[in-house]
Amino acid sequence: MADHAMRAAVLTGPRAVTLEERPRPEPGPGELLIRVDAVGTCGSDVHYYDHGRIGEFVVESPLVLGHEPAGTVVAAGPGADGHRVGQRVSIEPGRPDLSCVQCRAGRYNLCPDMRFFGTPPYDGAFCEYVTVHERFAYAVPDRLSDDAAALIEPLSVGIWANRKARVGPGRRVLVTGAGPIGLLCLQAARAFGATDVVVTDVNPHRLRLARDLGASQTLDVGETPLAEAGIEADVLLECSGHPAAVGAAIRAVRRAGRAVLVGMGGDEIPLPLSHVQRRELEVTGTFRYANTWPDAIAMVASGRVDLDALVTGHYGLADVEQALTASARDPQSVKVVLRPQA
Amino acid sequence: MADHAMRAAVLTGPRAVTLEERPRPEPGPGELLIRVDAVGTCGSDVHYYDHGRIGEFVVESPLVLGHEPAGTVVAAGPGADGHRVGQRVSIEPGRPDLSCVQCRAGRYNLCPDMRFFGTPPYDGAFCEYVTVHERFAYAVPDRLSDDAAALIEPLSVGIWANRKARVGPGRRVLVTGAGPIGLLCLQAARAFGATDVVVTDVNPHRLRLARDLGASQTLDVGETPLAEAGIEADVLLECSGHPAAVGAAIRAVRRAGRAVLVGMGGDEIPLPLSHVQRRELEVTGTFRYANTWPDAIAMVASGRVDLDALVTGHYGLADVEQALTASARDPQSVKVVLRPQA
Amino acid sequence: MADHAMRAAVLTGPRAVTLEERPRPEPGPGELLIRVDAVGTCGSDVHYYDHGRIGEFVVESPLVLGHEPAGTVVAAGPGADGHRVGQRVSIEPGRPDLSCVQCRAGRYNLCPDMRFFGTPPYDGAFCEYVTVHERFAYAVPDRLSDDAAALIEPLSVGIWANRKARVGPGRRVLVTGAGPIGLLCLQAARAFGATDVVVTDVNPHRLRLARDLGASQTLDVGETPLAEAGIEADVLLECSGHPAAVGAAIRAVRRAGRAVLVGMGGDEIPLPLSHVQRRELEVTGTFRYANTWPDAIAMVASGRVDLDALVTGHYGLADVEQALTASARDPQSVKVVLRPQA
Amino acid sequence: MADHAMRAAVLTGPRAVTLEERPRPEPGPGELLIRVDAVGTCGSDVHYYDHGRIGEFVVESPLVLGHEPAGTVVAAGPGADGHRVGQRVSIEPGRPDLSCVQCRAGRYNLCPDMRFFGTPPYDGAFCEYVTVHERFAYAVPDRLSDDAAALIEPLSVGIWANRKARVGPGRRVLVTGAGPIGLLCLQAARAFGATDVVVTDVNPHRLRLARDLGASQTLDVGETPLAEAGIEADVLLECSGHPAAVGAAIRAVRRAGRAVLVGMGGDEIPLPLSHVQRRELEVTGTFRYANTWPDAIAMVASGRVDLDALVTGHYGLADVEQALTASARDPQSVKVVLRPQA
Repeated sequence: MADHAMRAAVLTGPRAVTLEERPRPEPGPGELLIRVDAVGTCGSDVHYYDHGRIGEFVVESPLVLGHEPAGTVVAAGPGADGHRVGQRVSIEPGRPDLSCVQCRAGRYNLCPDMRFFGTPPYDGAFCEYVTVHERFAYAVPDRLSDDAAALIEPLSVGIWANRKARVGPGRRVLVTGAGPIGLLCLQAARAFGATDVVVTDVNPHRLRLARDLGASQTLDVGETPLAEAGIEADVLLECSGHPAAVGAAIRAVRRAGRAVLVGMGGDEIPLPLSHVQRRELEVTGTFRYANTWPDAIAMVASGRVDLDALVTGHYGLADVEQALTASARDPQSVKVVLRPQA
Repeated sequence: MADHAMRAAVLTGPRAVTLEERPRPEPGPGELLIRVDAVGTCGSDVHYYDHGRIGEFVVESPLVLGHEPAGTVVAAGPGADGHRVGQRVSIEPGRPDLSCVQCRAGRYNLCPDMRFFGTPPYDGAFCEYVTVHERFAYAVPDRLSDDAAALIEPLSVGIWANRKARVGPGRRVLVTGAGPIGLLCLQAARAFGATDVVVTDVNPHRLRLARDLGASQTLDVGETPLAEAGIEADVLLECSGHPAAVGAAIRAVRRAGRAVLVGMGGDEIPLPLSHVQRRELEVTGTFRYANTWPDAIAMVASGRVDLDALVTGHYGLADVEQALTASARDPQSVKVVLRPQA
Repeated sequence: MADHAMRAAVLTGPRAVTLEERPRPEPGPGELLIRVDAVGTCGSDVHYYDHGRIGEFVVESPLVLGHEPAGTVVAAGPGADGHRVGQRVSIEPGRPDLSCVQCRAGRYNLCPDMRFFGTPPYDGAFCEYVTVHERFAYAVPDRLSDDAAALIEPLSVGIWANRKARVGPGRRVLVTGAGPIGLLCLQAARAFGATDVVVTDVNPHRLRLARDLGASQTLDVGETPLAEAGIEADVLLECSGHPAAVGAAIRAVRRAGRAVLVGMGGDEIPLPLSHVQRRELEVTGTFRYANTWPDAIAMVASGRVDLDALVTGHYGLADVEQALTASARDPQSVKVVLRPQA
Repeated sequence: MADHAMRAAVLTGPRAVTLEERPRPEPGPGELLIRVDAVGTCGSDVHYYDHGRIGEFVVESPLVLGHEPAGTVVAAGPGADGHRVGQRVSIEPGRPDLSCVQCRAGRYNLCPDMRFFGTPPYDGAFCEYVTVHERFAYAVPDRLSDDAAALIEPLSVGIWANRKARVGPGRRVLVTGAGPIGLLCLQAARAFGATDVVVTDVNPHRLRLARDLGASQTLDVGETPLAEAGIEADVLLECSGHPAAVGAAIRAVRRAGRAVLVGMGGDEIPLPLSHVQRRELEVTGTFRYANTWPDAIAMVASGRVDLDALVTGHYGLADVEQALTASARDPQSVKVVLRPQA
């Protein structure tokens, strides 16, 4: 392979990924070139692989997936800080325009011109090298593993959900769904001070992991429906994405509580209106995150959140399809990380 | 009638109201005795009259309706301020316990032990005299008519909706439904600084009134469905209570906007999940109000809100049934006020 | 001593406390009678003892000090829940009127008619029995010691400061002053998710205790002035009460940070105006607390806050003066608890 | 003058302004070239003219003052929207880096790399042409005069102060100082819904103007000191910049109120600590503004704020020194606008 070439795993059609040689990207003004050391695989990568689209985002040409990268700075573009070469970084994978109304209001996750890694038509990080604006690459301390540096991205989803829900000390939190995002919502809730976190799922292995990671109670809703469990919470973090489950979950929320819909699942869900009104619940949804990286890194560095505990497998670039089908094959699989340099 | 007797209009069964003689209530400790000079009729009064219940609130014994009273202080109970005798007052009709978790947090509208005028099993103000905690009777200046003093209650609903929606200068507000509550949400939005308020309804008379009261645009959704009108708003104040309409209304809300569900309409509504998530909308419902009376009185006294413009009829106690059926009989009827002393 | 008598330590003049026999109080409507098992002594108790006043609060007649009580329910007044007899409780020592504007807005700590334990002219808990509104007596789990149940009160001061400062994950907090309140602000900050807490004092013993309780850094400002230490914080919790120190502390706060003035010290302090403006700092002070007890109890019960670690001595009612002079005698004294039943 | 030249008024030393011919600037990527039709003069321009510095900002080389410009788009740089040529615009004069922590959090006014018109070392708009990022040039409707389009900048200061103070319906606001900023804080407070606005000053002319613009009460503090006037307010907007007056003004703020320090006046002010604590006041300062232009334009376009009423004089570029000394010469001068094309 030529000096300035790299390998990239490219989605060329439904369930078709090929390893290609591509030119190594050049860092533009204010950008850094990053060697990707680890990149998490996410349910949305799997969804693009299986279905070729997520809602309005449609894969229409070959696409490199992957939006949870960490790596090492290897070069700096014009105007970027060259002293950072050699630095280990976690990458925030969205590039907003920074100047629109949403960006200037601090809500850059809602930027209509967002370019997001691994989301059509923008390539992601299932490859050896990526470029990123220097301010979206965050130095990580040595105590964070490469995996942890990659998983700052899904932790950010959990932090964002907890911020939206205004979780704090003394709050009782219900997390529905114990996949990676649910488990990170749980851990973030604990780091925000929540004293009680109840986690539901139908997968006993994941519920056990939830208990290991700090859940004060778990509920197998395959055995006991949530509506019959007598649970009351100040906050709901809905991470299952099952429309049928949302109603019962919202009904478990106390007066003046908040329900944050993190899991995606269909276009419409039934909202228990009279419950929302009589209890004055706040219901909202999350779309990615904003301004979470420094806090996320501090939470992991201080030991309050354990990201490595979620990792159940590693794959090389040549095995992306194996990685993307791991959770379908193995119910004990939680989070799979790619090592593009391996 | 004896000196200490009074007349009361009593709901004795579905669509059955009788005028009874009852003992005049005695003000307890900290309470004032109020001669009721005006009391508004509300859609919920009509609903109890027609159906004998609203959700979990069921009329099981004879009930005096009416929760929008204004009047004059005629006596003070033990410990209450006797100097207030003669004062004209607007009455806040809910009596929370003031000591529960919700009350102490400032959310007394969510008090589980609320006793609310005209809501089973508590009698209301379709009668000549009521008692009230002195701190829930608010002096009104001379420039407020008796009608206006009564309609501080529905105005409070509108203020509360606007507070929940954090309406302020520059905001574009969509009010769906131009009944009394919609028209008061409109007026409150203007008083909160909203520069654009769009009001929808199917009743041309009410849309005309909306324009008179400050709407910058009105839309007859019987002619043009909301989804086709190209309306975008920062805030939705849903006052129609039509479940089928809520989805289109929420879809008209911009990124980071708020949707406040004021109108009651069935137990469940379809929520456009992906829209709520991708735009990170906040959806909430309102249940009455808290801490609105002083602001409401100031808004009317300063001329920013016109309550008298909503009043389309007056009735005496003997004509309560006429009053409660006025809007069903006459599409131009907006708000009807009882004059119990007449 | 007669069956319905009790012992009380009464402040009769400057530095003069006598043990008196007084009638045991009777619980009124909605009240509980509590046997006081432990009651903390506070700097304000010491200040009343030394000076006979704190600002506008002047001791003009014999006064029972003490506002950090915990105990056991021994009787219930009319309408109060008799099932609570035997329950161990922590007492919130302020009794607001619950119906004024401040109370109804959820800010009952600002109630102008507050009756507060041990604050002229209201007696406190340096005695064997007190009465309290049942909703201001909070059940504590067995795992909380009597001392811890008493110290929920000063912990509430720390929680309140952290709430005002909106402390959360990732925040860097500067606590100036490592007395009991500073140490509880520190612990509360950690429980709120703060990853870095810097504590300053001139007492090496207290700084050591701060490190034991989770401070990530301590600074002896007797050796290195704060202004020279290069500290930058998102949040300042000022607990020293030294007017001369406040300026430097506020100058250590970053852009958009908050400074909460908890320590009392003189009527006026110099505020660095241009710093506050150019960085848009929010500066506020705290007055007691509101709605903190359940959260405080949960924080201690879950092990996130250690109250027992602060207790350096116990005294009986006969030794109140010894208790109130302990910290003046011994620089290693931190928090002293009375045991009225001993 | 050559085709690509323009005239600029340049501050070359203390009280020394010369009219120079300079090259017309070229719009860079994403920028627009604006012909300046009107530019307000501000107290800070006067301060630079008189003293050559404001705090840490020191004029060290020739500087073009002026940061309140409005004009017409005459050209678009690469990537900017060429369709805007001919559009009348109001210019937001600060150019933050948009990517730092403060910017991404929506607080771009606190950007440490801000380049601000007419603030050393960046030239301003006392000249015929300026360039600006296209998203910091806002279209204005025809009903706004050129003067009004220029004065959107100081109105933004008033809006920002009201946002910080969370002014809304029913609030009683005290504005100390009736200079241009005080008068705009007053008008903005009215537009935010404040029902009572009290304005103080020592200049009867300005107090009269305050009444004309909606003040419900004015106070000549040269005749009656504020401390003796018995004024109580929910919100203080301090616009006088007199350190000695701030203490009395803060003492006029009610429990749980806010004090926003807008006026600049020395490095330190005395803060009434015990008052701030016992009433739990929030004290903050403002530094410019963020995200105000669209709201400001809407407020003027809807007639809620009258900017033209403040303008007391117009000058051409050749008369900048006359403009900058107008208020010193004439106590009836309020706001002076330059017309660079005249």
